[in-house]
Amino acid sequence: MSALRFPDLPPSEPQGADLLAQERSRTTFSVHDLSNYLYGEEYLERQEKFLGLIENEPAFDKSNRYFLGRTERFAALRYEVIGCYAQTEIGHGSNVQGIETTATYIPETNEFELHTPYLTACKWWIGGLGKAANHAVVMARLISNGKDYGPHALCVPIRSMEDHTLLPGVMAGDIGPKFGYNTTDNGCMWFDHYRVPHISLLAKYSSIKPGSGEYIKPPNSKLSYGTMVLIRASLVGYARIGLAKAATIATRYSAIRRQFVDKDQPKKMGKETIETPVLDYSMQQYRLFPIIAAAYACHFTSKEMMRLYYLNIKNMASGNFSLLADVHASSSGLKSLTTTMAAASIEECRRACGGHGFSSFSGLPLLLQDYAPNVTWEGDNYMITQQTGRYLFKSFRDLVAKRASGKFSASQITNPTLAYLNTYLDNPDLKCPATTPAQFHNPEIQLAAYGHRAAHMIAEIVHGLDVEKRSWNSMLVEIYNASVAHCQLILVQNFILGIRGDMPQPEGIVATPLSPAAKEALTDLSDLFALHQIHKQPGEFLTSGYIEAKHVSMMGKAIMDVMDKKIRPNAVGFVDAFAFPDYYLNSALGRFDGKVYEAYTEMATREPINQTEVIEGYEQYIKPFTNPKGLKGKSIQARL
Amino acid sequence: MSALRFPDLPPSEPQGADLLAQERSRTTFSVHDLSNYLYGEEYLERQEKFLGLIENEPAFDKSNRYFLGRTERFAALRYEVIGCYAQTEIGHGSNVQGIETTATYIPETNEFELHTPYLTACKWWIGGLGKAANHAVVMARLISNGKDYGPHALCVPIRSMEDHTLLPGVMAGDIGPKFGYNTTDNGCMWFDHYRVPHISLLAKYSSIKPGSGEYIKPPNSKLSYGTMVLIRASLVGYARIGLAKAATIATRYSAIRRQFVDKDQPKKMGKETIETPVLDYSMQQYRLFPIIAAAYACHFTSKEMMRLYYLNIKNMASGNFSLLADVHASSSGLKSLTTTMAAASIEECRRACGGHGFSSFSGLPLLLQDYAPNVTWEGDNYMITQQTGRYLFKSFRDLVAKRASGKFSASQITNPTLAYLNTYLDNPDLKCPATTPAQFHNPEIQLAAYGHRAAHMIAEIVHGLDVEKRSWNSMLVEIYNASVAHCQLILVQNFILGIRGDMPQPEGIVATPLSPAAKEALTDLSDLFALHQIHKQPGEFLTSGYIEAKHVSMMGKAIMDVMDKKIRPNAVGFVDAFAFPDYYLNSALGRFDGKVYEAYTEMATREPINQTEVIEGYEQYIKPFTNPKGLKGKSIQARL
Repeated sequence: MSALRFPDLPPSEPQGADLLAQERSRTTFSVHDLSNYLYGEEYLERQEKFLGLIENEPAFDKSNRYFLGRTERFAALRYEVIGCYAQTEIGHGSNVQGIETTATYIPETNEFELHTPYLTACKWWIGGLGKAANHAVVMARLISNGKDYGPHALCVPIRSMEDHTLLPGVMAGDIGPKFGYNTTDNGCMWFDHYRVPHISLLAKYSSIKPGSGEYIKPPNSKLSYGTMVLIRASLVGYARIGLAKAATIATRYSAIRRQFVDKDQPKKMGKETIETPVLDYSMQQYRLFPIIAAAYACHFTSKEMMRLYYLNIKNMASGNFSLLADVHASSSGLKSLTTTMAAASIEECRRACGGHGFSSFSGLPLLLQDYAPNVTWEGDNYMITQQTGRYLFKSFRDLVAKRASGKFSASQITNPTLAYLNTYLDNPDLKCPATTPAQFHNPEIQLAAYGHRAAHMIAEIVHGLDVEKRSWNSMLVEIYNASVAHCQLILVQNFILGIRGDMPQPEGIVATPLSPAAKEALTDLSDLFALHQIHKQPGEFLTSGYIEAKHVSMMGKAIMDVMDKKIRPNAVGFVDAFAFPDYYLNSALGRFDGKVYEAYTEMATREPINQTEVIEGYEQYIKPFTNPKGLKGKSIQARL
Repeated sequence: MSALRFPDLPPSEPQGADLLAQERSRTTFSVHDLSNYLYGEEYLERQEKFLGLIENEPAFDKSNRYFLGRTERFAALRYEVIGCYAQTEIGHGSNVQGIETTATYIPETNEFELHTPYLTACKWWIGGLGKAANHAVVMARLISNGKDYGPHALCVPIRSMEDHTLLPGVMAGDIGPKFGYNTTDNGCMWFDHYRVPHISLLAKYSSIKPGSGEYIKPPNSKLSYGTMVLIRASLVGYARIGLAKAATIATRYSAIRRQFVDKDQPKKMGKETIETPVLDYSMQQYRLFPIIAAAYACHFTSKEMMRLYYLNIKNMASGNFSLLADVHASSSGLKSLTTTMAAASIEECRRACGGHGFSSFSGLPLLLQDYAPNVTWEGDNYMITQQTGRYLFKSFRDLVAKRASGKFSASQITNPTLAYLNTYLDNPDLKCPATTPAQFHNPEIQLAAYGHRAAHMIAEIVHGLDVEKRSWNSMLVEIYNASVAHCQLILVQNFILGIRGDMPQPEGIVATPLSPAAKEALTDLSDLFALHQIHKQPGEFLTSGYIEAKHVSMMGKAIMDVMDKKIRPNAVGFVDAFAFPDYYLNSALGRFDGKVYEAYTEMATREPINQTEVIEGYEQYIKPFTNPKGLKGKSIQARL
């Protein structure tokens, strides 16, 4: 029982529930239909069924989740996974080739000896390792007959299956508290001449001959790209989830939270003038609506990336590697762009909730902290854009050479990247023809602006590298920016084509059709997504020459217009369509029913510190200052 | 005693200590002199003395700081402050005029009755209130004879001085866990017809006559701006500290952390080729060096804002309010700009440390979380820029009117804001004369670019409001951007003048002179600070017409040049000059001695989870899965 009791009073009028009802009555499309389009009916039915089960199961009760310390949250877990993957070392992350742990082949016993030669070679950040795992896949430099063959994977036991103690020669532990992910047991591990049998080497692609120690090479080094592409493509989908969760919380709360009265357009509820909901302020719209749009943008690109991944896998199985370079380049750049965007957007949503975004009960701090590693893991977001860049510059150089050969025809354009590069080379001085704000709603103009800008940046970098002979290192900033430009174009393009129904579908999948009302509403978001990024950071569009100064203010007007007239009435509908159950958001501010203040105060009553009226330590720490002589009396004032 | 023992091995070569020694040997100025210039010798001596005391005092031991749960950290505190300031309510933050708590004057007993009429009126976020405070200054609507006089402050007892229990009519508690600040006791409180004596009303500026209940007005409403200006100006100084701490950690670590070999320019240590320290990559420089520069920029502007604050206070005391509007406008916009910049920069530094930036032991997660409220409190960073905007638009309109009156002379220009607006009005079509990258090192060109851009934006907004008759709400994005542009100019200007020694000094203060070598080095940072912001977001500079597309790539070259040739050798020196003791940074990555890996692993041994080899809960949760039949044996492999 809590010592804290909130007064049995309602929030002042109007009530959150009524405000959200008013919002929902204005939505121009069926939220249910849009959810079905996004997820499919089957998924939503499964979600509902599953939710019914876990909400009534004490083991999944989240009501005390925000209060648990690290040790307690850890013990709340149930370990079923006993393996872990140990690649990263304390001194080596992104550069796998630089790892220092060794696995030396011992022909006499047909074993490998795992060893940690330096402190920097300690395995670090290994998920599940610290305390739970009893086996590990360890990346180590394979050494045989004195020759170093670079990193290879070995599957080795690390703890006793009997009593879970560490095996002799292995040391492991937890790496300590982190920014987020505190329920994940990130561990460290090192080896002291630890012997494992020959079978431990994962030898699908390469191996060591028993006895002689002869090294057998992998058949095709490109095969290992597959998993990396899959993971990076999946992260685009996770970015959508992060964006959508944060947008749901901040949008619903902004429809309820009221602040100041907008003198030009006072808000009425019945006959009363009420403070203006913050969602009516253009600044709040400019902060939140592009995030809603970005979540939908990621939906379409994530679908397309998964389609391309499976198509590529199928192609590669029959020896066709033609898609691999494009898919690998796009997945790297898109991983970087969408996770950077999602992390920034979650923080923007947190701040857009004002002071309450700082409270754990908003759900946003934990979302932010748990999302944060995405910008670093699976390839640091700055570093991996070099892979996208290399592909773009090669494509550009090849295209220029083909066009110069005199044998070029448009039929040689095999993918959208070549298409926009070719359009640019046809006319590098192309100018945007728009003369009114309304013309910027034309998707062809939007695509031309993005294509021209990306191609211009690529052309400049290739000039810098090939003609000015600048070093790769001196151009890393431009290379990063070019990758962003290329990937923003992909997002804009897939959004436009996706709404039109012009995207290819994965084999055997019949797409749920989009209702005309939802199609119109999503087109508003697609417009905003395309124009907002230009308006907010017009620099590269201007320097590419396609966009001129006058266009930037036209776009500003087009954006304000579509936000105020078209998106504002649908804002709550758009986030409702993401269909996140309250259980999943775990947020007082973002509840579907709008009972923000009731939920928020109820959560505070469960704070452990509130379980006693007088805090522990009062006698020791406070009393000596406030009542040093043991005075009886009510207060300082009463003693005056 | 920890169960975790790291191997007694050094990190692989080269050692962090040697790398930092190499960095320090390249510094072109005396770090000691620059520190003296920034802080004064007296401050640094005091810091050293104080540090000597607390480092040996167990009560201030930080070695377990990152492991404590909320409840424990709370009890580690010593309460000496017993008061708190209760303004914010759960439904009302920035809009103080909207608070709902009432203080009704009761003439019969000469008391005020404090009451919470709605759930939204509960006091919330009150620092120190939750459990510690026994008195509170409460902001409540003052009501007398049925009339509402708006928010006023009352000082009231809330807990018994005898046993610390809440007084009848008062309820209070803790508001629960937060993103950061978890050692601060943020509380909530509400009143049920709680009576306090007449003396409780803080009546310095306004009062209620006993008996009749007559309200006596405050003499001058402008006086209350003073505190707000002081707090906002102080936050510029805190922004400097946040920037400088984060930059210190990330810069030192980036000089030690090595990744890949830069093929164009391989790094040598003696005869050996080593992996390239990440600080040598141009992208890392582009991420970190502007943050070092921003910290120095905030130093000069913070000094100037404090000088103006005290000058204004002195002026106001003699009835001169001429400075108030300018100081209030600048302090609002600068609070918004510098805290936004510092929060983004701390996160950028955290990410620039790669995976280890996610570990609490880097010191960066806690710094980020504790800094986070700065963008919200003391005026939300988007909202308060309207105050800056209003002043700028008024100044512009007044100036245009004066110029049109025919009686205008340059002598009427009384402050830098009017100066740049006037220059713009003299020639709105001015073009940047630079034709080479080197010319962008000219501070006059930098200042002209910033001045022209800010004035152009202000002119466009005034046109939108006055001629196109757009509503204030529809222009909030432009208004925010104009405030940023104005304040970036202030930062650039104070940086340039500060290094030159051309800033006015506060009365009675003799400035420490800057050595010629330090002056030259700081000029590089000032160049970078001015040019980087244009290069990164050139949009508004381009649309203002002063900067053209060709200039942006020239600036890019000027920046790369100054970073690579001038700032890179001094990078560690610049952050050393901030003079943060290791105790204060509490970071394994940012240590002065460069022993990153030794400190990091040592911190991990203190993790409480590592105090036992086999985790609690093994028998219950893990064993049933891994060894369901109680098998004896070494591992899965051994059983194959």
